[in-house]
Amino acid sequence: MSGTLHILGVGPGDPELVTLRAARILGRAPAYAFFARRGRVGHAVTIAAPHLNPAAEALRFEYPHTTEIPVEDARYAEGMTAFYDNCAGALAARLAAGEDVALLCEGDPFLYGSAMYLFDRLRARFPVAVTPGITAMSGCWSRAAAPMVHGDDVLSVLPATMPAEALAKALRGCDAAVVMKLGRNLPKLRAVLAALGLTERAIYAERGTMPGEVVMPLAARDDSPAPYFSLVLIPGRQGAR
Amino acid sequence: MSGTLHILGVGPGDPELVTLRAARILGRAPAYAFFARRGRVGHAVTIAAPHLNPAAEALRFEYPHTTEIPVEDARYAEGMTAFYDNCAGALAARLAAGEDVALLCEGDPFLYGSAMYLFDRLRARFPVAVTPGITAMSGCWSRAAAPMVHGDDVLSVLPATMPAEALAKALRGCDAAVVMKLGRNLPKLRAVLAALGLTERAIYAERGTMPGEVVMPLAARDDSPAPYFSLVLIPGRQGAR
Repeated sequence: MSGTLHILGVGPGDPELVTLRAARILGRAPAYAFFARRGRVGHAVTIAAPHLNPAAEALRFEYPHTTEIPVEDARYAEGMTAFYDNCAGALAARLAAGEDVALLCEGDPFLYGSAMYLFDRLRARFPVAVTPGITAMSGCWSRAAAPMVHGDDVLSVLPATMPAEALAKALRGCDAAVVMKLGRNLPKLRAVLAALGLTERAIYAERGTMPGEVVMPLAARDDSPAPYFSLVLIPGRQGAR
Repeated sequence: MSGTLHILGVGPGDPELVTLRAARILGRAPAYAFFARRGRVGHAVTIAAPHLNPAAEALRFEYPHTTEIPVEDARYAEGMTAFYDNCAGALAARLAAGEDVALLCEGDPFLYGSAMYLFDRLRARFPVAVTPGITAMSGCWSRAAAPMVHGDDVLSVLPATMPAEALAKALRGCDAAVVMKLGRNLPKLRAVLAALGLTERAIYAERGTMPGEVVMPLAARDDSPAPYFSLVLIPGRQGAR
């Protein structure tokens, strides 16, 4: 009997925003795996920590590169493919031995999550159970007290890593939007929003629901690089009822 | 001292997909409020039931109309405005008396939630705390085992209540999409998706994470009206790594 791979969304940051289901699985799993950047603890494991089985074994999956190889470089994609292959292999060894493993994911696993690449590699060979999580955007718009979409509003969710022209095309005339993955893309995004007349509506949120949370009008944010856990919200039309 | 209005997302349907925070607040709140259609128990209260303080008082907010007045009719909007005013008044009386109230919301409160209309009416007068919830779409794409967005994919979330032309405009060339509020709009949506060549990618999900769950290719679904808790998923490009 193979073990089950539990792909667990652990939510936006506050450990209390983990679901009862995720907490139950975390409390029993004999092993857990998580992604982390070099030199960092890893956000997902920080969120999950209060809920982990104290006897569980940890598998740390450390991303092979940070910024020393540009994303456009072919070596970047090659390195990531090999990395995900290795992670899948480490999980497969445990699953084949009949051991369950919990793979921790910030936010929701299927919304821009690295876990999708391991799901793709393992789903045909092992039982996989996915537990949804509160998304970073839900955490941020709750903290910003910003109702997002009403009635017939359309919500567009997009990564700031897109080229400026594609960002402008996606945001022009939008009802409501969330722009993820800010990082070094904040000046580019700001210019696009200004050109579209959307700056006044935009809210900047960083580390939403976590210690060190920042929520402010985008207009008040400087252009220094934004941390990984940051996004811009553009709330939709306010309810007219 | 006023009471606090806790606007609680209770998630997509499975009571175990409630967050630890929502469960804690539900277990202590002296009163809870929820929306329901005439003759129905109410989905949010069904989800929350295992977590409620047994001594808590219930405030049932029953929608004034179902289908006897068309949405386009001015009386529809007038009726809803009066309804939300009355609901806000009932909550305000308790809050002003210093009592906390938990307002239950299916999914996430700020994503097409009726609770937004009460938030808008009460936020200036009383302390309001919003707890995000797992969205119906996250619940459904987890159950469908359908990773939704990778890399630079854009996710479009839209209601099927939009006119066909607006639906087509929003879905044309989309990377990934979720279409909510299917109801009687399924034939219209199906025609739009067929014209755009998106039918093959579309997944129909009904009562995701709940008893009676249905997940199937949209092509296999007939055109009978879909229940309130249903949506169509169009997953984005599959990960190439």
